[in-house]
Amino acid sequence: MKDIDYSLYLVTDRRLVGGKDFYQSLGEALAGGVTLLQLREKEASSAEFYRIALKVKEICGRYDVPLIINDRLDIALAVDADGLHIGQQDLPLSVARGLLGRDKLIGVSATTLAEAQLAEADGADYLGIGAMYPTGTKSDARAVSLSELTAIRKNVAIPVVAIGGIGTANVTEVMGTGIAGVSVVSAILAQDDVRAAAQHLRQLIITA
Amino acid sequence: MKDIDYSLYLVTDRRLVGGKDFYQSLGEALAGGVTLLQLREKEASSAEFYRIALKVKEICGRYDVPLIINDRLDIALAVDADGLHIGQQDLPLSVARGLLGRDKLIGVSATTLAEAQLAEADGADYLGIGAMYPTGTKSDARAVSLSELTAIRKNVAIPVVAIGGIGTANVTEVMGTGIAGVSVVSAILAQDDVRAAAQHLRQLIITA
Repeated sequence: MKDIDYSLYLVTDRRLVGGKDFYQSLGEALAGGVTLLQLREKEASSAEFYRIALKVKEICGRYDVPLIINDRLDIALAVDADGLHIGQQDLPLSVARGLLGRDKLIGVSATTLAEAQLAEADGADYLGIGAMYPTGTKSDARAVSLSELTAIRKNVAIPVVAIGGIGTANVTEVMGTGIAGVSVVSAILAQDDVRAAAQHLRQLIITA
Repeated sequence: MKDIDYSLYLVTDRRLVGGKDFYQSLGEALAGGVTLLQLREKEASSAEFYRIALKVKEICGRYDVPLIINDRLDIALAVDADGLHIGQQDLPLSVARGLLGRDKLIGVSATTLAEAQLAEADGADYLGIGAMYPTGTKSDARAVSLSELTAIRKNVAIPVVAIGGIGTANVTEVMGTGIAGVSVVSAILAQDDVRAAAQHLRQLIITA
């Protein structure tokens, strides 16, 4: 597997781009310094998800940024994405690994150290931990404290990415826990200047 | 591919079984003569769909009835189902075939002769044509007449199955078009005696 830069990991939400073109916004985010992109589509039909994933893969390719598909292993296979991100309500990791093989990245969402350690033992390539702060895009997410995040980072060997309500106001303290990167949604896609928002976050991450 | 009996093809809808146990109802339907079963889950999470599919595969195995998964190629792969059924809003047939291989059954929903012929040309193993009659389980389905169904059956070489509002009152006239079988949902799963309902339909199909 190629060396992955998890530092600024964009997770998509088409509802956030407002009147702007979704694909153009993604291009601006990538131009601004996003290092990894996860396509999340919870409402789309399979046909629609497939068409969107094909387009997003092409855009990611232009910036040499890996594409991760949220939840849907079939879409990941169909577009030959670089990986799959699964939550606790998605396919079991062992099943996903068996179908995707070792060459694809599989990330797992976890909210506790026990979940994180189990995912690592089952072969996850990285962990998404959160929600760190209150967030409008995933209202059901359990809150994880900075000390819990630190404990998870210290007790697993695979890369840890924090997610949930992270933006310019708190990215420095989150990166201070020694994790590999942060996942953001609104802090990039809901901003007026998407490219500048990504650049600003990237600078704060590099400085942290 | 094994020889498939399409004559009485049950498509599931968990909402229809009322207070009864879903798996027990499926067992009764299979005991009553269902020859093929399609598991359809439009609301379940991936984890839930996977768990349900594993259980249903085990029940189908007891009756040596093939299991087809609706829409979700990843679930079909994950449980090693016998096939996949795709609608016009699901993954393209060519993509599904590439991932599933030639040994798995792929059925395609169609409402017109043009869609049916395209699906056949693209390598569908069978066609699901409908809705034949008004139905509560799929309110957005276009109506297909008996003469349109007959025209489709005459102009494709692959098996044709009719779906949509089919039950004891009209199964004889539908089978009279010379098709391979009928797909039913409510006519079996919403009945008080699921096994007797399947037996009755099976008898009418054999007689037709």
